[in-house]
Amino acid sequence: MSGNTIGQSFAVTTFGESHGPALGAVVDGCPPGLELTEEDLQADLERRRTGTSKFTSQRREPDAVRLLSGLFEGRTTGAPIGLIVENADQRSRDYDRIKDRFRPGHADYTYQQKYGFRDYRGGGRSSARITVATVAAGAIARKYLRERLGLAVTGWLSRMGPFDLAPVSPETASGNPFFSPDPSRLAELEDYIWQLRSRGDSVGARVTAVARGVPPGLGEPMFDRIDADIAHAMMGINAVKAVEIGDGVEVARQLGSEHRDELTPAGFRSNHAGGTLGGITSGQDLVVHVALKPTSSIQVPGWTIDTAGEPVEIVTTGRHDPCVGLRAVPIVEAMLLIVLMDHYLRHRAQCGDVASPTPVITRPR
Amino acid sequence: MSGNTIGQSFAVTTFGESHGPALGAVVDGCPPGLELTEEDLQADLERRRTGTSKFTSQRREPDAVRLLSGLFEGRTTGAPIGLIVENADQRSRDYDRIKDRFRPGHADYTYQQKYGFRDYRGGGRSSARITVATVAAGAIARKYLRERLGLAVTGWLSRMGPFDLAPVSPETASGNPFFSPDPSRLAELEDYIWQLRSRGDSVGARVTAVARGVPPGLGEPMFDRIDADIAHAMMGINAVKAVEIGDGVEVARQLGSEHRDELTPAGFRSNHAGGTLGGITSGQDLVVHVALKPTSSIQVPGWTIDTAGEPVEIVTTGRHDPCVGLRAVPIVEAMLLIVLMDHYLRHRAQCGDVASPTPVITRPR
Amino acid sequence: MSGNTIGQSFAVTTFGESHGPALGAVVDGCPPGLELTEEDLQADLERRRTGTSKFTSQRREPDAVRLLSGLFEGRTTGAPIGLIVENADQRSRDYDRIKDRFRPGHADYTYQQKYGFRDYRGGGRSSARITVATVAAGAIARKYLRERLGLAVTGWLSRMGPFDLAPVSPETASGNPFFSPDPSRLAELEDYIWQLRSRGDSVGARVTAVARGVPPGLGEPMFDRIDADIAHAMMGINAVKAVEIGDGVEVARQLGSEHRDELTPAGFRSNHAGGTLGGITSGQDLVVHVALKPTSSIQVPGWTIDTAGEPVEIVTTGRHDPCVGLRAVPIVEAMLLIVLMDHYLRHRAQCGDVASPTPVITRPR
Amino acid sequence: MSGNTIGQSFAVTTFGESHGPALGAVVDGCPPGLELTEEDLQADLERRRTGTSKFTSQRREPDAVRLLSGLFEGRTTGAPIGLIVENADQRSRDYDRIKDRFRPGHADYTYQQKYGFRDYRGGGRSSARITVATVAAGAIARKYLRERLGLAVTGWLSRMGPFDLAPVSPETASGNPFFSPDPSRLAELEDYIWQLRSRGDSVGARVTAVARGVPPGLGEPMFDRIDADIAHAMMGINAVKAVEIGDGVEVARQLGSEHRDELTPAGFRSNHAGGTLGGITSGQDLVVHVALKPTSSIQVPGWTIDTAGEPVEIVTTGRHDPCVGLRAVPIVEAMLLIVLMDHYLRHRAQCGDVASPTPVITRPR
Repeated sequence: MSGNTIGQSFAVTTFGESHGPALGAVVDGCPPGLELTEEDLQADLERRRTGTSKFTSQRREPDAVRLLSGLFEGRTTGAPIGLIVENADQRSRDYDRIKDRFRPGHADYTYQQKYGFRDYRGGGRSSARITVATVAAGAIARKYLRERLGLAVTGWLSRMGPFDLAPVSPETASGNPFFSPDPSRLAELEDYIWQLRSRGDSVGARVTAVARGVPPGLGEPMFDRIDADIAHAMMGINAVKAVEIGDGVEVARQLGSEHRDELTPAGFRSNHAGGTLGGITSGQDLVVHVALKPTSSIQVPGWTIDTAGEPVEIVTTGRHDPCVGLRAVPIVEAMLLIVLMDHYLRHRAQCGDVASPTPVITRPR
Repeated sequence: MSGNTIGQSFAVTTFGESHGPALGAVVDGCPPGLELTEEDLQADLERRRTGTSKFTSQRREPDAVRLLSGLFEGRTTGAPIGLIVENADQRSRDYDRIKDRFRPGHADYTYQQKYGFRDYRGGGRSSARITVATVAAGAIARKYLRERLGLAVTGWLSRMGPFDLAPVSPETASGNPFFSPDPSRLAELEDYIWQLRSRGDSVGARVTAVARGVPPGLGEPMFDRIDADIAHAMMGINAVKAVEIGDGVEVARQLGSEHRDELTPAGFRSNHAGGTLGGITSGQDLVVHVALKPTSSIQVPGWTIDTAGEPVEIVTTGRHDPCVGLRAVPIVEAMLLIVLMDHYLRHRAQCGDVASPTPVITRPR
Repeated sequence: MSGNTIGQSFAVTTFGESHGPALGAVVDGCPPGLELTEEDLQADLERRRTGTSKFTSQRREPDAVRLLSGLFEGRTTGAPIGLIVENADQRSRDYDRIKDRFRPGHADYTYQQKYGFRDYRGGGRSSARITVATVAAGAIARKYLRERLGLAVTGWLSRMGPFDLAPVSPETASGNPFFSPDPSRLAELEDYIWQLRSRGDSVGARVTAVARGVPPGLGEPMFDRIDADIAHAMMGINAVKAVEIGDGVEVARQLGSEHRDELTPAGFRSNHAGGTLGGITSGQDLVVHVALKPTSSIQVPGWTIDTAGEPVEIVTTGRHDPCVGLRAVPIVEAMLLIVLMDHYLRHRAQCGDVASPTPVITRPR
Repeated sequence: MSGNTIGQSFAVTTFGESHGPALGAVVDGCPPGLELTEEDLQADLERRRTGTSKFTSQRREPDAVRLLSGLFEGRTTGAPIGLIVENADQRSRDYDRIKDRFRPGHADYTYQQKYGFRDYRGGGRSSARITVATVAAGAIARKYLRERLGLAVTGWLSRMGPFDLAPVSPETASGNPFFSPDPSRLAELEDYIWQLRSRGDSVGARVTAVARGVPPGLGEPMFDRIDADIAHAMMGINAVKAVEIGDGVEVARQLGSEHRDELTPAGFRSNHAGGTLGGITSGQDLVVHVALKPTSSIQVPGWTIDTAGEPVEIVTTGRHDPCVGLRAVPIVEAMLLIVLMDHYLRHRAQCGDVASPTPVITRPR
């Protein structure tokens, strides 16, 4: 396939562009009997929505999701769930100036070379706006996993440029416009973003997401390890340039005696592994970090070429976040939820009747 | 599927365990007409083979690959290529002592909980030995991409514990047992490994791989971006805990004005992006880094539980590398080659007749 | 996946129910640069539309398709094409009487046992109305294949109950409400349908479709033969109970000396094979027949059980065709087009650069 | 993929050619804990083996299967099961005379045009010999489904040329070289085959397979209906030109009042549908018929072209069955078993915890 589907047993196919009539997704494989309403999806969409704060892109979109199928009397039927979000605010005249030139850091040049031409309005299919559909699909997985397994995924901003943010109270991260897990740092972050904006520059970020209540046994041994599928999902998010599980890049400096997580009847003694061993969940918290590059659309002038290959100067104007990471938290959560949901169902296919003689050590016995 | 296949158009399915009769792969989708012999595969297998140096595991395996199908008169026919490598040295008595207990850092506990029991001999399917099959499959991709596109993939050890290794002469990395790209550091590395071995400990590593000569346009926009599929492939290698593209985790600290790679008619001015924009190759060098955790099998005693859930002490003996990263370079290369090959064919399916009016800036014009 | 996607390189995912808000599809993998408008799809939708004649179901639906993505300035971009058709006429009160009982010949009982409950309004996901989405997707394939390959697919009704219809002028079939390839038989067919309707009964049918201008070489050797994928697609149409290629069931009675199609420099001497040898197209006309069962919704009373398992009598009322085959022609054509399009792209992936030394015998040399 | 994999949750990938070193398969997704030995597979291989009777091809092959992976202490581990069968008798000199010419009815011309050249030894990948791998994989499904669900698949020859064979005692079909379900017809069949052989001609056949003990609920609603996936699997068998479910082609002549199967608390009153409604199993016997064309290799001279496109005469010699249908029964069974196994696991993924309030009517209550 052309890569617009993720998941095998819980398969999410998305469509839509920044400035087309609508965005949407088809979620195939959702188990029947899940109570689901448009409001369940809307909550996550609000969290990612542009225009919610002065620090993010000023595009105004209601992002009202409409469920088109797969439901009957308020419950999923097992049929595919079609959903769409209309694009209301499509000021495509903004983009006429870039139609003939390739913005550095954007997918303009690569789309041009792949397809021979491109939808230059807002990045077309490469726009971060597309993640609306992913977030909506993730909300379905979130509800199922919470209700059936007690599994919860929480994300936060763990770095923004020079600021490292400690998970002081990650559960409050969704309550502030920076998704900061440390409310005491908000003033600093706000100052920094205003400075960036005044200079027309942008900055990178790191987002952390943790899944709690994951049953042991999810993931497939070889290529479709749980962490491999998470890496695939995360690197599929716009602007992501690195994915780490558990201690991540730090493991390259660790000793074996430091890294390993000893087991006890009451649980693991540490979680350097980030919740997966051999690609299969251990029942510990699944810990994922992603690094997002700075927004490519900045007002600092730069050089590029035009569609004929000639050199031209470029300054990006329009509505842009100084830090794409600020809106990435709900997307990272959605991707993690989709992968976990898919693997929960895949595991049930092959091992639905397995009973291990060994007690699960990560839950109360 | 149960996750033992990677790729869609160039699909590699592997099978085999550490101590079973044989390992192997089926490579489906290879274009017809490629000249191919067992020797073409053997070269890469030699590079990953255990027992080639005193620094890696002492298991002795000839690793002679046998091509079973898909060839006629020395050329690929388009039919699936079956290949096997017999396991010659299967000292499974070594593993009796761990049959009832879970080695920390290994997949023992997670396999047990997933499947209800496990093949404890050498880690079974979770053994790094399985990568023999992947490396053999990667060698087929390597030959095709080199002959048809002039594409080359080179990897090296870029870090081992405290040592950062600069790419002084990456092309010589394959010639030394550390895959070090800096020959002047070999004595230090050797000293360090001997110390580790005497302490019964292990250390992590970082491997870098670069693909040169990649045509622009490979990769699919949304979930199957080239970097997403690379992340999936790399995180599917044993012990990998992080995958970075281009500047990787550092992007979280960068400014937009620093990160973006300007375009000129003669090429890009920098390569922070690592060769991909919007998930599609730009024609620049594709740059990938992976972090590998320290070998989990160490001789430092530690605590764990047994299959009944009771606490027990454990000391791993047997044949083990003090640094799994030392053998990972050919595996990382193979995975990158498989992904590139797959996406080259996938691109040809959808865009085989596309002609862009824009000149390719990354090649001599 | 849960089976709502067909095709690998040209992948069509559908969603929607008989009485939900809307039906739709996502078409992923369409090559870029194809000129496409909603009118291109509407033409085929008109051909399958209910309410076009007095002989088919009286449900009134405008079936206006809306293209939501994947297009820019009138051409496909390579991004997924989202399309929806709103359900206007959803008289779901009609179905209250069957909510607790299973209509014989319908999927009511099997959906109930699979999912634990069911959307009883008009059959929900099992309704033939869903084929609207398939027909729209097929129209995209039709346009591409006609413009790029000169390939054309034509279908007709080759049998209805006791009537065998010879392909006297198949190109006129679309012009009459029976899709009869023999205009001289229309009065008989009409009489018969009126009799059936007055008795409240229904009748089966056979539809034939032929693809002309198919290049040799499409199809994969083993499981995904062109005829295997056609069989999959056709048996996936509501009410289809048999799929035949070329001489079909008759081959069981033939001798080898009768069946084989001799080759000459000017082409094959016959076409018993129906255009495929070893699962790969030969360049001859691809000939497919499907048998469709009689409409299950009839007004002849019958016995069934209710959701509690108790016996009850049932008479189906509501809007129903006396012969589902009358509307199946555009659906059969659409499915054949989707399979051919998919295999054209799949073939290009693996064999895009193959040049055979043997001349193609099925085209003017 | 290139079409050498069948199934999603129970995925069978095969490789090998008629005259290569070995044939084989990888079976991925088999649930853990199934007791399995090479003998379990050998039994089905014996049934399909050439050389078992004077009526089938005289090629002598021991067909000893070797299990290479996925087993530990006699039970499946959940890891992929690799299996191979060495080709012992590879008299490839027989095929030199056809290397430059295309046998009518064979895949010679189509492979040539697809791949640019072909492995002409025994048909290469298009040989019926490849089904050895499928039959071995099917034997694994057979064992699982029998032991866990009490499901049994039985096949027989229901037609051979002019002979219709009634299922007088289908359970005895495996005991005679014709797989005839009516032992009283053996002498006639034998006479007929001798006549054919003396004339150097061949004949077509029809094979019927029935699955008993199928739980209701297997199959996916839209494209991957159980009957659609069965049609795909069956049409993927060499020489198959038609697939029918239940009443098959006859439904085109039936009335709705004849065809429908009424439901009662004690079961269905008839089985015209052949065990599936809306693509989902009803719990009734699943009834499948396939039509196989006559063997294409006959000794009646005929015309063809050579690789340069010039006309030449051809007479096929070598080892060939006068009726390929005689060996098809175990292959048809294997394919049906693979599809059922795959759908059993797929169903468990999505609906593993569904409980329907409606009693199952096809089993003793």
